[in-house]
Amino acid sequence: MMQSDVIEADLNRITVTDPFLGEYQRLIRDVVIPYQWQALNDNIPDAEPSHALANYRIAAGQEDGQFYGMVFQDSDVTKWLEAVAWSLSQKPDATLEQTADEAIELLAQAQCEDGYLNTWYTVKEPGQRWTNLAECHELYCAGHLFEAAVAFYRATGKRRLLEISCRFADHIDTVFGPNPGQLRGYPGHPEIELALMRLYEVTREPRYQALACFFVEERGKQPYYYDIEFEKRGGTRHWIGWGDAWPGMIKDKTYTHAHKPLAEQNEAVGHAVRSVYLMTGLAHIARMTNDEEKRQTCLRIWNNMVQRRMYITGGIGSQGIGEAFTSDYDLPNDTAYGESCASIGLMMFARRMLEMEGDAHYADVMERAFYNTVLGGMALDGKHFFYVNPLETYPKSIPHNHIYDHIKPVRQRWFGCACCPPNIARTLVAIGHYLFTPRRDALFINFYAGSEAQFTINDQPLALKISGNYPWDEEVNITFSHPQAVQHTLALRLPEWCEAPQVLINGEAAQGEQLKGYLHITRQWQQGDIITLRLPMTLRRVYANPLVRHNAGKVAIQRGPLVYCLEEVDNGAELHNLSLPKASQIREIPGTGVLEGKIVLQAEGLRVLTAQEDKPLYSFDHRQTAVEKQTLIFIPWFSWANRGEGEMRIWINEA
Amino acid sequence: MMQSDVIEADLNRITVTDPFLGEYQRLIRDVVIPYQWQALNDNIPDAEPSHALANYRIAAGQEDGQFYGMVFQDSDVTKWLEAVAWSLSQKPDATLEQTADEAIELLAQAQCEDGYLNTWYTVKEPGQRWTNLAECHELYCAGHLFEAAVAFYRATGKRRLLEISCRFADHIDTVFGPNPGQLRGYPGHPEIELALMRLYEVTREPRYQALACFFVEERGKQPYYYDIEFEKRGGTRHWIGWGDAWPGMIKDKTYTHAHKPLAEQNEAVGHAVRSVYLMTGLAHIARMTNDEEKRQTCLRIWNNMVQRRMYITGGIGSQGIGEAFTSDYDLPNDTAYGESCASIGLMMFARRMLEMEGDAHYADVMERAFYNTVLGGMALDGKHFFYVNPLETYPKSIPHNHIYDHIKPVRQRWFGCACCPPNIARTLVAIGHYLFTPRRDALFINFYAGSEAQFTINDQPLALKISGNYPWDEEVNITFSHPQAVQHTLALRLPEWCEAPQVLINGEAAQGEQLKGYLHITRQWQQGDIITLRLPMTLRRVYANPLVRHNAGKVAIQRGPLVYCLEEVDNGAELHNLSLPKASQIREIPGTGVLEGKIVLQAEGLRVLTAQEDKPLYSFDHRQTAVEKQTLIFIPWFSWANRGEGEMRIWINEA
Repeated sequence: MMQSDVIEADLNRITVTDPFLGEYQRLIRDVVIPYQWQALNDNIPDAEPSHALANYRIAAGQEDGQFYGMVFQDSDVTKWLEAVAWSLSQKPDATLEQTADEAIELLAQAQCEDGYLNTWYTVKEPGQRWTNLAECHELYCAGHLFEAAVAFYRATGKRRLLEISCRFADHIDTVFGPNPGQLRGYPGHPEIELALMRLYEVTREPRYQALACFFVEERGKQPYYYDIEFEKRGGTRHWIGWGDAWPGMIKDKTYTHAHKPLAEQNEAVGHAVRSVYLMTGLAHIARMTNDEEKRQTCLRIWNNMVQRRMYITGGIGSQGIGEAFTSDYDLPNDTAYGESCASIGLMMFARRMLEMEGDAHYADVMERAFYNTVLGGMALDGKHFFYVNPLETYPKSIPHNHIYDHIKPVRQRWFGCACCPPNIARTLVAIGHYLFTPRRDALFINFYAGSEAQFTINDQPLALKISGNYPWDEEVNITFSHPQAVQHTLALRLPEWCEAPQVLINGEAAQGEQLKGYLHITRQWQQGDIITLRLPMTLRRVYANPLVRHNAGKVAIQRGPLVYCLEEVDNGAELHNLSLPKASQIREIPGTGVLEGKIVLQAEGLRVLTAQEDKPLYSFDHRQTAVEKQTLIFIPWFSWANRGEGEMRIWINEA
Repeated sequence: MMQSDVIEADLNRITVTDPFLGEYQRLIRDVVIPYQWQALNDNIPDAEPSHALANYRIAAGQEDGQFYGMVFQDSDVTKWLEAVAWSLSQKPDATLEQTADEAIELLAQAQCEDGYLNTWYTVKEPGQRWTNLAECHELYCAGHLFEAAVAFYRATGKRRLLEISCRFADHIDTVFGPNPGQLRGYPGHPEIELALMRLYEVTREPRYQALACFFVEERGKQPYYYDIEFEKRGGTRHWIGWGDAWPGMIKDKTYTHAHKPLAEQNEAVGHAVRSVYLMTGLAHIARMTNDEEKRQTCLRIWNNMVQRRMYITGGIGSQGIGEAFTSDYDLPNDTAYGESCASIGLMMFARRMLEMEGDAHYADVMERAFYNTVLGGMALDGKHFFYVNPLETYPKSIPHNHIYDHIKPVRQRWFGCACCPPNIARTLVAIGHYLFTPRRDALFINFYAGSEAQFTINDQPLALKISGNYPWDEEVNITFSHPQAVQHTLALRLPEWCEAPQVLINGEAAQGEQLKGYLHITRQWQQGDIITLRLPMTLRRVYANPLVRHNAGKVAIQRGPLVYCLEEVDNGAELHNLSLPKASQIREIPGTGVLEGKIVLQAEGLRVLTAQEDKPLYSFDHRQTAVEKQTLIFIPWFSWANRGEGEMRIWINEA
């Protein structure tokens, strides 16, 4: 089923009221956005300077100076603007909006006559535009600009940033294309494809969709564009990185998914963030253009990614070098990369697949990524962030074994230039976009975070409110408040983690059709209607597919969408010596301290006695593995490393 | 107890007659030594050139040309000469001896007037001698020259190479030292220390022992010599390697064990081969000079190394980057380095500790390293070699995850320049030196490989023969054939892997004193005496210290000194899904094919059903881990990867 009829405009009328996610949104609003603004202005003492706004001021001729920062420094400003926009749509803030308007005005001043806008090439390498698509992120930065513009327009109705974006997009459209004199290139870091599709949805300018199509169709054709431009510019390279272990992003075309045309690709490979950003754009194009070949590519890559290369946490990317996928079922827990941004990209990819397919499977994955890796990427204080999200840490070994070079045992302060923190910020404030999929045939409710939303069904308003305390409480209520009854189909996701969901309408068992994991209910929805979902959150033992060698003999615990873990602070050191007997009952207890409001789990487990420093390394004595009873404490994995440094482990031996 | 009275001269009158090790010696003689000679002469088609002999000819003025190869290329020739020497002492070969004599003559011609001998600095960088000790292996190459000279003299009585070595050693002794005008440096790669001690034992020239002392005592003093010479030569670097992950061997002084004086070091750190070579020299010095401080350093480093940082295979070095130790109990099986040369160095270190301490513990480790990692370093065909010896391989993932960059699933051909193959060669042909420790107080027999040996006890000959088929058969006989009865103490090692060893003399229970793992028997040994050792080779389950997280819940199988493993060719793929129930009996079966003559083990095990490609990655269904019975086949680990590429695993889940 192809559906080109998602009503995007409705998505900016969703307010999250959930106390749990509401607290994250408050942190983004009160802590992250102001902090990042100070960072962009170089006002954080002891931090590396960002210089991102200064770069724009220099490009705008407002001050003298040199460009400073990464080749994609501009995107820090536009990601901030996008986060601000979605935050404003959650909670208006005139002062913040004015600050954003001023920043937008600065971008306008920095834009070139012909519409080009990129401070690296304007200030640092004038005349070198579009000479190194493989490595230099010009089109990536353009994409983040477009996303910010769409968000700002959706949130405020203001068109200034949209106009800047369209001018730039129009310029890009003249530079790239199949005609003589145009470049047949495509970005080293995908992003513009998905952003052009969003721009198209707002502007309905067909050239934007066509340009996105051009980029994805040109990708991977031979002779390789990255080689052609490399020769043309005299063989210069912008990035080195990772030493001998990796040949670099020009030579290693798998890294950028440019090793062959997308239609011939079958596996999730290379840089994980690039992969999901690219597929997000492709899935959007496939739906909007009803292109079965592109849809099949999306399905193939998706299936390989989530059936064989995804962690239980919704993390993707099994290795640090290349921040990349490895091979089927290669999912080491302690050397995982699982970048926060990659799971955000997986949510984006899932969202576009869900829009196209209407299948709860995509929402299952989206929810898994969100409630585990994405939430876990930010500390409960909103001030510390994980870029890399391992499933197991043993801090004593991390500084000494280079296989852990990318692993940090605790979240880091966010300094100067950064990708994951602003990405987490913009995702959290726009989480409503993932909760609902307003298609013309049905309003899909994907997961049940507390929220209020208004949709337009055949020009009539449909207003609903989700209440409850998802995913902690088992009962969720959806109430309706629009004045006039509206005939429509609601599609309620029945989560894969829930064995026996119950749906009541006004107290009676709901009648509906179960289709691809959604219960489709068509009726006249009227004020006072109440849907009650009972989603029993049985404490589930999870087993990995036996092809995942790292989890052989091991079990993980899940409650609702939340994956749990052991931490040293609750269970003592040497977590590998703990095991959970098959027969042990798991029970819920309330969290305390920073875990207040969260559900903690307890079970009777076993511990191999570990005070063995004086014992030999290897022994024939089976008493070396003697066990004693120990009560195990599991906490939601997303909340690990909020109580200091210590060991953490998701997969534990099942005794 | 300090003992300076090991009778080294006796060691060249040991002939290995063991059919098992004899076959390895035959391979060295018939395959490895001729192959390497062809390689040194650049006569191997399709191989990178070695150029090592050409470098000497150019240095000798016999031909024109450029230096080619590594900065330590010279040592390939001297390691070959050492292997030839010990091979000649096992089995004379006039043609081979003449070839060696000619090579020695070439070295003599290449030696400078002042005694200096190193073709890199003579041909490629004249005038730059001794300017980069940290990185450039001059003293390392000198050490291998000295070791070859001692071996050649011991084996043949010929002094030519010894004279070349003494001239060079004398020159080095003028260059290095505490006096004004002398360099207070020490080698970046230890080797000369242990070699000077061997040279001292042959020559009794006290300056050589003093120079070895100087090198070990100078090491790690501040200001650091490597920094001083770095400044002096204008900040040039010879090696880069491993990219950003590693700051290089000048800056990372832990890598070279030069971060602090040896007397203050407590842990086995840095490059594993360098560590054990250094400690071998230090232990030799400690014994010869009766230096308690140096002995304590040896004991501390030894204990840390073998109690916390050694694999069950006798492998050391847990990581590929830096070929280095990591931290206590950090012993990952699949990303292990476990370099063949490091285990050879561990044998050398153990041998020197054993000479000093007379404790079977050192022989236990020596035997473990030898019968597992060192033998495993060479294929059963003598033509393929492992540099890196993992305890677990999953070939499908190796090419795709950079944590496996150093891992090869099968042994490689030995081309051009190489460290491990010639090191394995010289060790295998000199294995008699490890079997016996002829101290003045007792003749220690460390392990019981079939051999014939002659010792001199108070000027009287003592000749013995060990027969049996160690370590396959449980019974070993030692018979005596010297004409006149000799009063002496024999110290017979009672291996740690043997629960109930029995020792009979002429059929009656032996009377002796058990001391540090050796049974000391003092009597008149006469022709016709026969010692019978019965060493029951119970099939043992081995458990790792619970502080080793990688082996939690796992068991390994050992028979005698041999560690066993599962291979895919016998057990099917996905070895991680196999487990061994606690109650399973293990039984012996004869090996077949390339495993002919070896003992293979069988046990009833369990397999989690693995035909699961279509199943989800994560499941709540415990039937995902349903098991069926499967007979497990274990082979001696040293013989893995002789039947094509496939998975291998030592540590398996105990059900």
